[in-house]
Amino acid sequence: MEAAAIYHRPDSEFAYLYQPDDFRVRLRTKRDDAQAVDCFYGDPYDSEKGQWPYETIAMSKIASTEAHDYWEAALEVPHKRVQYDFRVVGTDGSELLYGDRGCFPFEPSLIGGGGNPFRQPYFHEIDRFQEPDWVRHTVWYQIFPERFANGDTSNDPADVKPWDSTVNPGRTDYYGGDLQGILDHLDYLQDLGINGLYLCPVFKAYSNHKYDTIDYLEIDPDFGDKEVFQKLVAAAHQRGMKVMLDAVFNHIGDRSVQWQDVLTNQSKSRFANWFHVNKFPISYQETTDFEHANELSFDTFAYTPHMPKLNTANPEVQAYLLDVATYWIKEFDIDAWRLDVANEVGHHFWRQFAAACHAVKPNFYILGEVWHSSQPWLQGDQFSAVMNYAFTETVIKGFVDKTLEPTRMVAGLNYQRMLYQQQVNEVMLNTLDSHDTARLLTLCRGDKALLRQTVAFTFLQEGEPCIYYGSEVGMDGGNDPDCRKPMNWDPATQDQELFAFYQKLIKFRLQHADLMTQGALTWQVVDDDQGLVKVVRDDGATFVTGIFNLSGQAQKIGALQTADSVVLSQGLTNDELAASGFVISQR
Amino acid sequence: MEAAAIYHRPDSEFAYLYQPDDFRVRLRTKRDDAQAVDCFYGDPYDSEKGQWPYETIAMSKIASTEAHDYWEAALEVPHKRVQYDFRVVGTDGSELLYGDRGCFPFEPSLIGGGGNPFRQPYFHEIDRFQEPDWVRHTVWYQIFPERFANGDTSNDPADVKPWDSTVNPGRTDYYGGDLQGILDHLDYLQDLGINGLYLCPVFKAYSNHKYDTIDYLEIDPDFGDKEVFQKLVAAAHQRGMKVMLDAVFNHIGDRSVQWQDVLTNQSKSRFANWFHVNKFPISYQETTDFEHANELSFDTFAYTPHMPKLNTANPEVQAYLLDVATYWIKEFDIDAWRLDVANEVGHHFWRQFAAACHAVKPNFYILGEVWHSSQPWLQGDQFSAVMNYAFTETVIKGFVDKTLEPTRMVAGLNYQRMLYQQQVNEVMLNTLDSHDTARLLTLCRGDKALLRQTVAFTFLQEGEPCIYYGSEVGMDGGNDPDCRKPMNWDPATQDQELFAFYQKLIKFRLQHADLMTQGALTWQVVDDDQGLVKVVRDDGATFVTGIFNLSGQAQKIGALQTADSVVLSQGLTNDELAASGFVISQR
Repeated sequence: MEAAAIYHRPDSEFAYLYQPDDFRVRLRTKRDDAQAVDCFYGDPYDSEKGQWPYETIAMSKIASTEAHDYWEAALEVPHKRVQYDFRVVGTDGSELLYGDRGCFPFEPSLIGGGGNPFRQPYFHEIDRFQEPDWVRHTVWYQIFPERFANGDTSNDPADVKPWDSTVNPGRTDYYGGDLQGILDHLDYLQDLGINGLYLCPVFKAYSNHKYDTIDYLEIDPDFGDKEVFQKLVAAAHQRGMKVMLDAVFNHIGDRSVQWQDVLTNQSKSRFANWFHVNKFPISYQETTDFEHANELSFDTFAYTPHMPKLNTANPEVQAYLLDVATYWIKEFDIDAWRLDVANEVGHHFWRQFAAACHAVKPNFYILGEVWHSSQPWLQGDQFSAVMNYAFTETVIKGFVDKTLEPTRMVAGLNYQRMLYQQQVNEVMLNTLDSHDTARLLTLCRGDKALLRQTVAFTFLQEGEPCIYYGSEVGMDGGNDPDCRKPMNWDPATQDQELFAFYQKLIKFRLQHADLMTQGALTWQVVDDDQGLVKVVRDDGATFVTGIFNLSGQAQKIGALQTADSVVLSQGLTNDELAASGFVISQR
Repeated sequence: MEAAAIYHRPDSEFAYLYQPDDFRVRLRTKRDDAQAVDCFYGDPYDSEKGQWPYETIAMSKIASTEAHDYWEAALEVPHKRVQYDFRVVGTDGSELLYGDRGCFPFEPSLIGGGGNPFRQPYFHEIDRFQEPDWVRHTVWYQIFPERFANGDTSNDPADVKPWDSTVNPGRTDYYGGDLQGILDHLDYLQDLGINGLYLCPVFKAYSNHKYDTIDYLEIDPDFGDKEVFQKLVAAAHQRGMKVMLDAVFNHIGDRSVQWQDVLTNQSKSRFANWFHVNKFPISYQETTDFEHANELSFDTFAYTPHMPKLNTANPEVQAYLLDVATYWIKEFDIDAWRLDVANEVGHHFWRQFAAACHAVKPNFYILGEVWHSSQPWLQGDQFSAVMNYAFTETVIKGFVDKTLEPTRMVAGLNYQRMLYQQQVNEVMLNTLDSHDTARLLTLCRGDKALLRQTVAFTFLQEGEPCIYYGSEVGMDGGNDPDCRKPMNWDPATQDQELFAFYQKLIKFRLQHADLMTQGALTWQVVDDDQGLVKVVRDDGATFVTGIFNLSGQAQKIGALQTADSVVLSQGLTNDELAASGFVISQR
């Protein structure tokens, strides 16, 4: 057995409280190297030498990646304290005891006190990762406000372009989308079935994308005012929809009062310490010349001088941003913040941020934009989840580009799932496209069957699906600016059949929200030769099965079909699955 | 090569800022499985597809455990952002690229953008683990105040026992030790050479050990008053000694006002929510009956009803304890808190605690009592270090019990070192005995040569040595209460030769404090057959070598001797090392 591959980490995604009295332990072994793992556990104060009365629980293999198997068990711990260690039984018959000082050849005397067990010293509910439960029952819909709908022409920018004209690169291409436009289409969104609105920035800013904030406490005048925003939140809530805003706290816009003051007064500005100025006087020019980037006199988002980075270690900046964060919760009752460039803002600030938001609204959802692995932010003290771009990329490589065979795609998805506590996985935001990526339909080269298949697969995963505005009616578009085209409201060119498909899928997901988030996820078939993936979600009472044909060729799947009732399907003719077909069934 | 054994974890002890611009990355491989590791790194915003102009640095193997090798490199990062991945070259010649999505067969195109590198998004000084530098230049001395010296008989408890009478078990055996006694012996301690005083609890409490606090804001009347404590701190500071107090915040004493109020008023008490009461009315009886421990109506330290556990999730309790914590810093200028049962108090509270202490005194040292692996507390937001009992146990097994051969002892020490960032290792408190363990001399069965050898070895390790009162004059004692005997002040029975040895060792350590904490640590010889360990500390300019004979038999070590000047030695006759001998030399 490969002892060097065995890994556990106390007080992490390998050892966490799932519920106040449900303590989960995970263990990693080399793939196919262990035949069984037992966890020994008990109360640390009852650990007299050789007399430790421990419990034993067999761990289940819950996921495999290319290199590893992951084992998990739920420990019942009556007195809030537990010490534990593991017996790993190799496929070669050898046995190891693994505890807080490493792996040793198994001997019963090593269990517990004798062998330095791992320890979860005391269960603190305040330290437990507590996800807001409503998120599990949500399907999100992301709106880029300047491009969704123009509901009030009186607030249009001066140089507004015709709604159906070609989008150009640049920050100052305006179409007149606004909050009234969103409000006007809540019936449409309700008809679609989504119940979470995720709005890109709406605060006063310079550009069309509004990521260069001028004033965090004002609605952008091109989008409306606080009155219409209040109406929008109230109307959404009336319809059972949650509202998530985009918090751009990593940087501020260069036209903000704060930055303008620094530009004018330099080191004498009262905001001089609000930023990461490397050298006064500030020089101010765009650069993509990384050889000389160290000559940039201040830190920015990327190397964009229009977006000077805020110094969130400065208590004044902290107070200001926390005031902003709580203002929109207290005064407008928003339900969630999405945090732009969340990874480049420090943990110290995010801890304050989470505490401040949850003090005002305990069930508040905090979603970080982090494109890479995100454990440091997801321990319960900072974010609720991240935008799951690792999921996105893996699914697209598997379903669309077909650069990952089914086994490697599933291994990649499991790799990500095993980075996080189970309750984190249950509230991830699983988007397939966004304002920062090409649209899925374009990636699919217009193949709507492939798009449907990919979307359906995503709806069966633990995190919540997020639909990027217009995908439901067949909008396409490459990278920015093409992915930010104005919404297609023309019934003649909207794909109504696709809309009906999304309706059905959303309704299905929300009907089975608990099962889809909390039910066991099993990959029953992952077949590279046939190009088939069969995934099952099972909560003991109900189960849902999805079969996906990634082979690019129609094929018979008769033997895989086990369900009683077909709920959703594409390309199914008796037991035949079309080239990009799928079937979701339930029993 | 064993890909399944390779491990890295962003934003952890595997990836951390050692200095504001010195970013350290570590990688774990299976032992003797890799011949070389390179780290590729560069600015993430300069990552155009296939055009990523990265730097390459060869990583050094810095430590090995039984199962693993650890590799480290220091990256120079000019713009505070870095992405990185690793090329691991196996001893079998195979090559892997390891990044944020796992290991893949190495191809140059996978480096950086193509292969999802790891990421340290932005260097935040506020999130960096910042250890107080003075700790590196400290040798600690732990005092159990009731047993160190009686300097003022006017404050003796009524039933005080003769200083030289036998200690008995129990909480109420008093000898009259007090703060004046410590003050009176500062000259003695200065003569010994230590410069850090670590006092067991001094606040008003019921028992002789004072871990059952009655009032955190009063000095125990048996020990003196605030005036004498103030004098003690001032006198210590005058001598260049730091002062560390013991904070018992996990629980309070049952004779405290707070608990007495709960006992009287039960659920109506204004302190009812200060504790973890499982069921009112509180029943109050001692138990070691774990089968029925769930019948305990409130949570305690262990199962001791005299020590009800404080509910540190309650903001009132937080405010109270933070007030206590800062009071003794503000008013008495203490330098450090040692935190009793630190592992059972929640992270949420310790973060507040650290922030509060550092706001008052930035260089404040926070030492947790944690006996097991402690990464969750040592990320920079909670403790500075822990009492390094894992070190203690490993050294004692290697040197004293000889149940670990040299290779396994060194592997065990490295296992612990690799759990933490380097700056944590540099400020660990390395004690060989304490009020909670048998004394080293007793573990050595009175073999003072063995004791000297073990102590000398400890003085060559990265963390700071801590001397338990009286060890320097040859005090022995088994587990509590024997390890809490009154200090031996009788020159006739004090071991003056041992005292001189400690003096010399302390002086040596403090003269080379930077080298001892920050110099590279290399195990040049670890020989199970000969029972020899040769450790070298090297900062480039100076190096110190220690050779230790663990064989139990005198032996020639001629070839191992490379140093110019012998600084400290025991049992050296020309090139011969006694059974429990050692030589420390420097060049």
